[in-house]
Amino acid sequence: MPGSRVNSDLWITEYISPYDIYQHGVVDILVYRKTAFQEMCIVETGTFGKALVLDGKWQSCTGDEFLYHEPLVHPACLNHGAPRTVLVLGGGEGATVREVLKWKSVEKVVMVDIDGEVVEACKQYLPEMHQGAFDDPRTEVVIGDALDYLDKAASAWDIIISDLSDPIEQGPSFKLFTKEYFEKCRRALRSEGYFVVQAGALAPPEMELHVRLVNTVGAVFPNVVSYSSQVPSYASPWGFALGSAAPLDRRPDPAAIDALLESETTGDFRMFDGTTLLGLMCVPKHIRSAIAAETKVYTLAEPPKFFGQGVAE
Amino acid sequence: MPGSRVNSDLWITEYISPYDIYQHGVVDILVYRKTAFQEMCIVETGTFGKALVLDGKWQSCTGDEFLYHEPLVHPACLNHGAPRTVLVLGGGEGATVREVLKWKSVEKVVMVDIDGEVVEACKQYLPEMHQGAFDDPRTEVVIGDALDYLDKAASAWDIIISDLSDPIEQGPSFKLFTKEYFEKCRRALRSEGYFVVQAGALAPPEMELHVRLVNTVGAVFPNVVSYSSQVPSYASPWGFALGSAAPLDRRPDPAAIDALLESETTGDFRMFDGTTLLGLMCVPKHIRSAIAAETKVYTLAEPPKFFGQGVAE
Amino acid sequence: MPGSRVNSDLWITEYISPYDIYQHGVVDILVYRKTAFQEMCIVETGTFGKALVLDGKWQSCTGDEFLYHEPLVHPACLNHGAPRTVLVLGGGEGATVREVLKWKSVEKVVMVDIDGEVVEACKQYLPEMHQGAFDDPRTEVVIGDALDYLDKAASAWDIIISDLSDPIEQGPSFKLFTKEYFEKCRRALRSEGYFVVQAGALAPPEMELHVRLVNTVGAVFPNVVSYSSQVPSYASPWGFALGSAAPLDRRPDPAAIDALLESETTGDFRMFDGTTLLGLMCVPKHIRSAIAAETKVYTLAEPPKFFGQGVAE
Amino acid sequence: MPGSRVNSDLWITEYISPYDIYQHGVVDILVYRKTAFQEMCIVETGTFGKALVLDGKWQSCTGDEFLYHEPLVHPACLNHGAPRTVLVLGGGEGATVREVLKWKSVEKVVMVDIDGEVVEACKQYLPEMHQGAFDDPRTEVVIGDALDYLDKAASAWDIIISDLSDPIEQGPSFKLFTKEYFEKCRRALRSEGYFVVQAGALAPPEMELHVRLVNTVGAVFPNVVSYSSQVPSYASPWGFALGSAAPLDRRPDPAAIDALLESETTGDFRMFDGTTLLGLMCVPKHIRSAIAAETKVYTLAEPPKFFGQGVAE
Repeated sequence: MPGSRVNSDLWITEYISPYDIYQHGVVDILVYRKTAFQEMCIVETGTFGKALVLDGKWQSCTGDEFLYHEPLVHPACLNHGAPRTVLVLGGGEGATVREVLKWKSVEKVVMVDIDGEVVEACKQYLPEMHQGAFDDPRTEVVIGDALDYLDKAASAWDIIISDLSDPIEQGPSFKLFTKEYFEKCRRALRSEGYFVVQAGALAPPEMELHVRLVNTVGAVFPNVVSYSSQVPSYASPWGFALGSAAPLDRRPDPAAIDALLESETTGDFRMFDGTTLLGLMCVPKHIRSAIAAETKVYTLAEPPKFFGQGVAE
Repeated sequence: MPGSRVNSDLWITEYISPYDIYQHGVVDILVYRKTAFQEMCIVETGTFGKALVLDGKWQSCTGDEFLYHEPLVHPACLNHGAPRTVLVLGGGEGATVREVLKWKSVEKVVMVDIDGEVVEACKQYLPEMHQGAFDDPRTEVVIGDALDYLDKAASAWDIIISDLSDPIEQGPSFKLFTKEYFEKCRRALRSEGYFVVQAGALAPPEMELHVRLVNTVGAVFPNVVSYSSQVPSYASPWGFALGSAAPLDRRPDPAAIDALLESETTGDFRMFDGTTLLGLMCVPKHIRSAIAAETKVYTLAEPPKFFGQGVAE
Repeated sequence: MPGSRVNSDLWITEYISPYDIYQHGVVDILVYRKTAFQEMCIVETGTFGKALVLDGKWQSCTGDEFLYHEPLVHPACLNHGAPRTVLVLGGGEGATVREVLKWKSVEKVVMVDIDGEVVEACKQYLPEMHQGAFDDPRTEVVIGDALDYLDKAASAWDIIISDLSDPIEQGPSFKLFTKEYFEKCRRALRSEGYFVVQAGALAPPEMELHVRLVNTVGAVFPNVVSYSSQVPSYASPWGFALGSAAPLDRRPDPAAIDALLESETTGDFRMFDGTTLLGLMCVPKHIRSAIAAETKVYTLAEPPKFFGQGVAE
Repeated sequence: MPGSRVNSDLWITEYISPYDIYQHGVVDILVYRKTAFQEMCIVETGTFGKALVLDGKWQSCTGDEFLYHEPLVHPACLNHGAPRTVLVLGGGEGATVREVLKWKSVEKVVMVDIDGEVVEACKQYLPEMHQGAFDDPRTEVVIGDALDYLDKAASAWDIIISDLSDPIEQGPSFKLFTKEYFEKCRRALRSEGYFVVQAGALAPPEMELHVRLVNTVGAVFPNVVSYSSQVPSYASPWGFALGSAAPLDRRPDPAAIDALLESETTGDFRMFDGTTLLGLMCVPKHIRSAIAAETKVYTLAEPPKFFGQGVAE
C-alpha cells in the first residue's frame, strides 16, 4: 500500500463539506481562543505559513493571501480609476486595507470589523499581512457592526469592499450576504462608486453560493461581473462579485491596465497586473452558464447557509 | 467550539505534502486492489462523484474532470487547427481520448497506457469518463510502456498528449517527466505538431515541479507556453505545458476560437470556449515570473521527485 | 516537528465522540453497502485484521475479537455450570455462537439477528470469526427482531446473551438496551438462568452507558455483576453486565474455574482461563463506585443515546 | 451513510502505528514548542482534559492519568510495605511523585528528568497532575540524565520507578529500556528494593515491546511480574513490569491490601484498592503465554524501536 510521511501531530482541520476535509499540519500556535463573536485561531502551518481561522473556517494565510487580497481590491479600484474614499467591511487581517493603500488617490480608508479581538490579534501576530496598514494616517479602524455603520454612513464612498467571513449558521456574517445589505452598500456609495464582495467557492459541486450572490448583487446594481482567483489554501477557486451603476470593463486591455497601475499605484503587486486581470475576468463557461441561469436572490428572509457552524449565541 | 457534520466513516485520503491532507468521504467502493504497477482505487465520493486514485494520488473524478481534460486537449488542437493523428500517453480513464474525438479532423488516436488493469477497470466502472471513447473506430489502445512506444514510433503525430500520473518515487511515471522523454516526443511529432504535458500543481509553496517542467519543455521545443486550470478536487490550480516548433497563440481571440470550435468539433464542451481559453492562457504574474527565473531542467539523471510513494518494485 | 509514516490512503474512521476519532488504515475492502437496516462494511485493516463496521461503529475484528467474545460468553456459562440451551440476540459475526458451542453441555443455540445481509456477509467473508459455527447441527439462525422473538419464546433458556450493536440513534438496537427488553429476557430464561449483555465503554469521561445499564439489569434481576475486558480496537475497555436470579460468583477461584473449563468445554481459549476470569471480575474502584452511586434505569421512554447515528428510516 | 458530529477544528493526532491514528479534538492550547530534547505540547482536549504530548506521543491526561499513575506506583510500594526512599526516573508531570508522597513512610523522593522545560511547563500548566508534589519538602527534582544519575547513585533506594516516555527512535529515552539500564537500577536499589518500569501497550498486534521488557527485567531481577491497567486515552491497555530480589505477591488478598493502604498511606485513591490490585495482577492468558514464550532481551546493542520519531539531534 502506498506510504506517506506526515510531519505534524497537530492539525488544523477545515470541514469544507460533510464529505470533504482539508487538514494542515501545524508547527506553531500563536492564538487559540473564543472571542465575543467567534472562535479565533492563528497558527503557523508547515506549508502555507501563518493562517487565521475563524469558527473553523480558514480565512487567509501568509502563503497565498495575495491571491485573494489583490483580486479583491484592484479590479474595483481600476474600474473607478482614482478612488479617494474606500470602505472595507470586515477584513480583520488588514491585508485588504494594505492593498487599498497602494492607490495614490486614496485619502481615507475605513475598516469596520465587528471583532476587535480578531483585529488586535492580527495586528500583533500577522505583520506579514497588514504590513503597517493599521498605522497609515489614512486608515481608520471602527470596531462595530457593518449594518449599523452603513445605516449612519453618508453616500460618500467611491469603493465599498465586503470582505467578510463566510455566511455560516450562527456565525457573525450571514446577514451580510443578502439583498438588503447590498442595498445599504449601494446607498452608501457615490453614484459612480463600485461595490465588491468576496463571493464563495467555485467548485462544480458547490457553486450555488457564488452564483446566487452574483445574482443578488445584480438585483441591486445595474451592472455586475463575476470573476475568480485561484487560492490553493481554499481548495477551490474563489469567486468575487463586482457591482456598480457605472460601467464595468469585462475584457480589460492588459497594456492599458499595466499603464494605469504604474501611474496610479505604488506598485509592489505579487500576482496582479494587466494580464492577470484579464485572466481573472475570463471565468470558465460552466460558471458563466450557471450565473445566467440563476433566478434566486438571497434576502434576510432567505439568507445563505454556508456549511459550518459558529459559536455565537 | 465550532461543530461540523461529517457524513462518512470511510475516507480516501490524499497526502498532498507532509503537512497537507485532503480527505473525501466515500459512499461506495468500486475497485480497490494492487495491479502489477500500482495500487488502484475507484471510489464514489460524497461530493465529487466517482474518483480514480492510483498509488494514493487522486487522478480525476467525475465531479470535475472536465476542468482537467478539456484544457489538456483543446489548446493543442486549436493551435494546430485540424489534427488528424493524436497520441495519448497515459490517460487510463479514457476521458482524454473522449475529448480528442470531438475533433472532426481526427482520423486516429492511439492511447498508450502501461497498466491494462487500470484501463479495464475504467472501462467498466467509469463510463461517465470515457463515454464510449474506447469503442470509437478511430481509437486504438496499446497496453505498454510509453518510452518503448515512442522509440518505435514514426514521426507521424500531429499532437502528443502526455497525460501521466504524477512523478512520485517508485511510481511508474517519473522517467516520463524528463528532457529525454520530451525529446522522444518531439521526434515522434510531425514538424508542425504540438506536445502538451500535464505539468503539476500551482500552489505558491510548491510550484517547482510546474516551473521546471515548463523550462524542460522549453529546452526541447522552440516555443512553449504555460497555462493553468482550476480543478477543485486537486486542491491546487493545475498547470500544463504546451510546446511546439510551430507558433503558439498566447492571447487567443475568443470570437475566433468560438468559430473554430463550432466548425471543427462536435461541440458539447462543459467549460471550454473562447473566453475560457483566453483565461487559461492569462496565468497570474507570480507564476510567469517564476517560470522566467527558472534555469534547471529535469533529466533522467535528475528527475522530478513528487511527494508520494508508489508500490512498484 | 515529529514525523510519522502512514501506510494507507483509505481509512475506516470511528467517531467515538465529537472529540475523539480512531482511524484504521484499510488494505482491502471486502464489503461496503447499505442493507435494509444499516450501513455494513467489512474491511481488512493494516493492524487489526478483518473488521466488521456497522453504521460507522466498529463491531469486532479478527485481531482482537477474542478479547470481547470469550468474556461475553464464558462467565455466564461458568456460573451456570452446564448450560443446555443458549439464546444469542444479535451476534451477526457468529463468534458468540462459536464460543457457546465450546460447552459440551450445549444442545441448542439459537441466534436471532435482524439483518440477514450482515449474517450472510459474515458467513462469507469472516470465516476466522465463525469458524464453522453456523454449520454446527446445534446452531439455529433466526433472521428477525429480537423483541418479537422474545415475545413468543417459552421460558426455556439457560443463558441469554445480548450481543447487539451499540444503541445509537436511528440504529436498529437502541430499544434493546432498556428495562422492558431485559424483562422480556428474564421471562424467557429458566428460573436458574443467566442473562449477559454487552454494556458499553469504560473510559472515565463516558461511563454513563455502562453504569446505567448495570443498574438497569439490576432493576430486573436480583443479582447483577459488572465486569470488563480490555479490547484495544475499541480504544476503551469494554463492560458487560451479568444478571440472574441465581447466585453469581464475584470472586471466582482460578483453579476451580480451570478445572471446570477442562471438564466441561472443548477448550481452545485464547485469553480465557481462571486467572483471566478473576481479573475480569475485579473492576477498578472508580467503576464500582460509579455503579454504586447510579440511580437511573433505561426505559423505552428514556432509552440510551449512544454517540453515533444510523441510517434506518 | 452514517453521520457524525465533530466539535473541533484542531486535532492532536497520535500516530500509534502506520495504520492506526487516534485523534483528539483540542479546545485550548497551553504550550506548543520544541525544547532542547523534544517537541512538547500541552493541550486541553474536549473529552480527556489536559494532556501532555511529547514528540507526538501522548504521555498522560488529566482525564484518565490516575489509571496509569496509581498502578505505576502502588504495587511496588505495597510489596515493599514501608518505602522510605523512592527514585523516580522521568515523570515530568509530577503525578508519579504525587502518588509516592501518599506513603507515610516516604522520607525522600528524587525525580530525575532530562527536560527541565517539560518539568517547568507541567508545574505551571498541569496543577491537576502534580497537586503540589513539587513543593513537598520530601521532594527533590534533578534535571539531568537518568543514566548519569544512576552511575553516581549509592545503593540507597527502596523503590525505583522508571516512568519514561516511550522508546521511539531519536527520542531521549530508548537507551533506558535496556538490560544495561535495568542493571544500573538494580545496583542503585537496596537489596530488598523494588524496581518498576512502564512497559508498553498490550494490544494483540503489538505486544512485543511489553513482552520483551518483562523478559529483560527478568534477566536482571530474580523475580518479575507483569501487570496491566486500562488507560482509555492510550487506546490500548498498558503494561508494567515489576522486578525485585525480594518476593512478589502475585495474588494479593484484597482485604489485606485495603488494610495496608488504610494504615500506611494518606489514601485518596481514585482507582486503587485491594480488589483493583488483584485485577491488575490477573493479566489475561494470551499475555502470560506470550511472556512465557519470550526469549530475547533488549540491550544497548539491540534496543527497542517503538513506532514514532523524535526530534533530538
